[in-house]
Amino acid sequence: MWEELRPIGRDSSSGGYRRHAWNGADTDCRAWFRAQAEARGLAYELDRNGNQWAWLGATTYRDVAAGDAVVTGSHLDSVPDGGAFDGPLGVVSSFAALDELRRRGAEFGKPLAIVNFGDEEGARFGVACVGSRLTAGALTAEAAHALRDADGVTLPQAMERAGHDPAAIGPDPDRLARIGAFVELHVEQGRALDLSGDPVGIASAIWPHGRWRFDFHGEANHAGTTRLEDRHDPMLTYAETVLAARERARLAGALATFGKVSVVPNGVNAIPSLVRGWLDSRAADQDTLDRVVQEIERAAAERGARDGVDVRVVRESFSPVVEFRHALRDELRALLGGADGAGGKGGGRARPVPVLGTGAGHDAGILSGTVPTAMLFVRNPTGVSHSPAESAAEDDCVAGVTALADVLEGLACT
Amino acid sequence: MWEELRPIGRDSSSGGYRRHAWNGADTDCRAWFRAQAEARGLAYELDRNGNQWAWLGATTYRDVAAGDAVVTGSHLDSVPDGGAFDGPLGVVSSFAALDELRRRGAEFGKPLAIVNFGDEEGARFGVACVGSRLTAGALTAEAAHALRDADGVTLPQAMERAGHDPAAIGPDPDRLARIGAFVELHVEQGRALDLSGDPVGIASAIWPHGRWRFDFHGEANHAGTTRLEDRHDPMLTYAETVLAARERARLAGALATFGKVSVVPNGVNAIPSLVRGWLDSRAADQDTLDRVVQEIERAAAERGARDGVDVRVVRESFSPVVEFRHALRDELRALLGGADGAGGKGGGRARPVPVLGTGAGHDAGILSGTVPTAMLFVRNPTGVSHSPAESAAEDDCVAGVTALADVLEGLACT
Repeated sequence: MWEELRPIGRDSSSGGYRRHAWNGADTDCRAWFRAQAEARGLAYELDRNGNQWAWLGATTYRDVAAGDAVVTGSHLDSVPDGGAFDGPLGVVSSFAALDELRRRGAEFGKPLAIVNFGDEEGARFGVACVGSRLTAGALTAEAAHALRDADGVTLPQAMERAGHDPAAIGPDPDRLARIGAFVELHVEQGRALDLSGDPVGIASAIWPHGRWRFDFHGEANHAGTTRLEDRHDPMLTYAETVLAARERARLAGALATFGKVSVVPNGVNAIPSLVRGWLDSRAADQDTLDRVVQEIERAAAERGARDGVDVRVVRESFSPVVEFRHALRDELRALLGGADGAGGKGGGRARPVPVLGTGAGHDAGILSGTVPTAMLFVRNPTGVSHSPAESAAEDDCVAGVTALADVLEGLACT
Repeated sequence: MWEELRPIGRDSSSGGYRRHAWNGADTDCRAWFRAQAEARGLAYELDRNGNQWAWLGATTYRDVAAGDAVVTGSHLDSVPDGGAFDGPLGVVSSFAALDELRRRGAEFGKPLAIVNFGDEEGARFGVACVGSRLTAGALTAEAAHALRDADGVTLPQAMERAGHDPAAIGPDPDRLARIGAFVELHVEQGRALDLSGDPVGIASAIWPHGRWRFDFHGEANHAGTTRLEDRHDPMLTYAETVLAARERARLAGALATFGKVSVVPNGVNAIPSLVRGWLDSRAADQDTLDRVVQEIERAAAERGARDGVDVRVVRESFSPVVEFRHALRDELRALLGGADGAGGKGGGRARPVPVLGTGAGHDAGILSGTVPTAMLFVRNPTGVSHSPAESAAEDDCVAGVTALADVLEGLACT
């Protein structure tokens, strides 16, 4: 199963994946998902927002009683030059966990669905978790219609070109009302499990985080003839802001990153008229995050005043802190062996499964406002993610599938 | 004539020009040049390196005795979102000066050519003055064959797509040997004429200048989960280098600019694996320029060591100082009225034409190693260039045409 998915959207020179919302590689991944569903006799359903569902014990969400469905899954899209595991590991493990439960001869008492949420990474249109946000009403159809990629293609145009009708996008509360539990398995994007020596962990919370676009407006001019004192060079203001962001985050114990920049006109011998930089910032609590971003904005404005550069800041997205619901989180822990690892459906583990926080956003975080939600993490030996170097050992992936099967058996089986 | 050229390659939103080597707008500009030549009964010739020539008193350079031709012209391509004057003013003024000389009933004693040099700005392939460099042997055919644009299209591919045979590119010493004088008229890219109150000036020298590509190699990782102390973030090293460049240039009285940057993967939530920044630096003398660039490289390496980022620097192009040949420069000055402005072909000016230096590179600078070369500048009221705000008053453009006609009459007419 993994081998079929592996080559799709992989760049031969970087070794990284370029599965961006509604592009050719994404379409191929979607076809793979549907084939996996149908090969297992699951009912395939594409929802209004482009998320894919594979149902066992129902043919569509309409067959399901309120709060009855147990759902697992993740996403198949990637960041630019991303790794193989972020997203796909959760989808592949979901199908593998179902196979494992069938091997165990499990009897399902509740409808089960495996889901592939569309456009989780936001690599193409700049907003993360578009599929789950639209479904949960956290992104309006109007705002989604206005999203454009770097070539000026709008989200509806991209959907249409991929054969999906964009007219119907929007909130889907009736679908969410049927879900009693959503469990997302994901490769860990840090080194906590590696440092503790555990193959699998349970999520406690997702840090609040957001994306801010900083527009530095200067004045285009000739780099070879304009005196330094006559310049309004926005690259200088940008550079100072990048360094200030790192420093402020360090002092506050937060994270702040400028990983994306766009320059107009971006010519070697032209002072730019505009430098646009995107800040990604996260912290353990909202107050810290607010303070860090305010300090970065202030540093940008101060340097801008010196450079004769106008600085405008737009918050493009924001996700408040997500505390995964304690009841479901504790249920997962019990199903995986409890506080000493000995009990649980799976027949006992040598040690308890640890509970850990994360700075990364996930569809599970978006849904957690509406639906009881939990996450499992699989150890990442280097902590590297969003890069071709992202990895997970085969044994740990198997442990992840076993843990997910244990959880689903506990939640959905009689 | 100006009105026909004006709309070609102009972006409707920015108002800037995007006439980049061998693209559609460049092809349209070339067609315009040929039409202008043919409308005046000039013999049209395209040379092996894609430069266009319009001959009066010859059908090709082969008809011309060594050192006999008087040549004027400039270029029609632009930087990204460039202005209307940088390049085209020189070509349009050349045709207008010929028209003026015919009105004056001038008798030509020498062959005259008007030239449009290809790819002066280097906007697409990163190397400036490709047409004149190839002709002068300052860029080898081998190196030119290896040039690629941002989409990976090579220079030969781009030439071929535009209908030009790339097989023949290379040095053209036989052509250059026929040229006795090359005069390029250009909009001033600074404020010296504006500050002195003169419509037209003569160039003394072009500062030495070059382009260096700084490659900052870090490690791609997730911006939301990677601890600051585990990062190798090349954006930080880049930012420090941008600020160091400005500071070192200021202290040395030189110019240093990072106007172009490229980031891999350039995702909002991904720490980059690679930031590539291009430094443009110029100074009045070679020693100062060498020192400034060395200091910037040292600052980059020091910060890179702190960030765990590997810094590699490649000099992509370099032009040593150009002192325009004193004999031709002095001849121009005499033709434009001499030290008191009173004498000369044109019948006297109210005041002498000033002589000034420039930081900008030009085809005239490239050719000056082989051919007697001079330049005329037309006042730019704001000093802004490489921007849609670049401008020149109509009266000053007319003064430029008159001065160029006076010079050509003196050099080419009996």
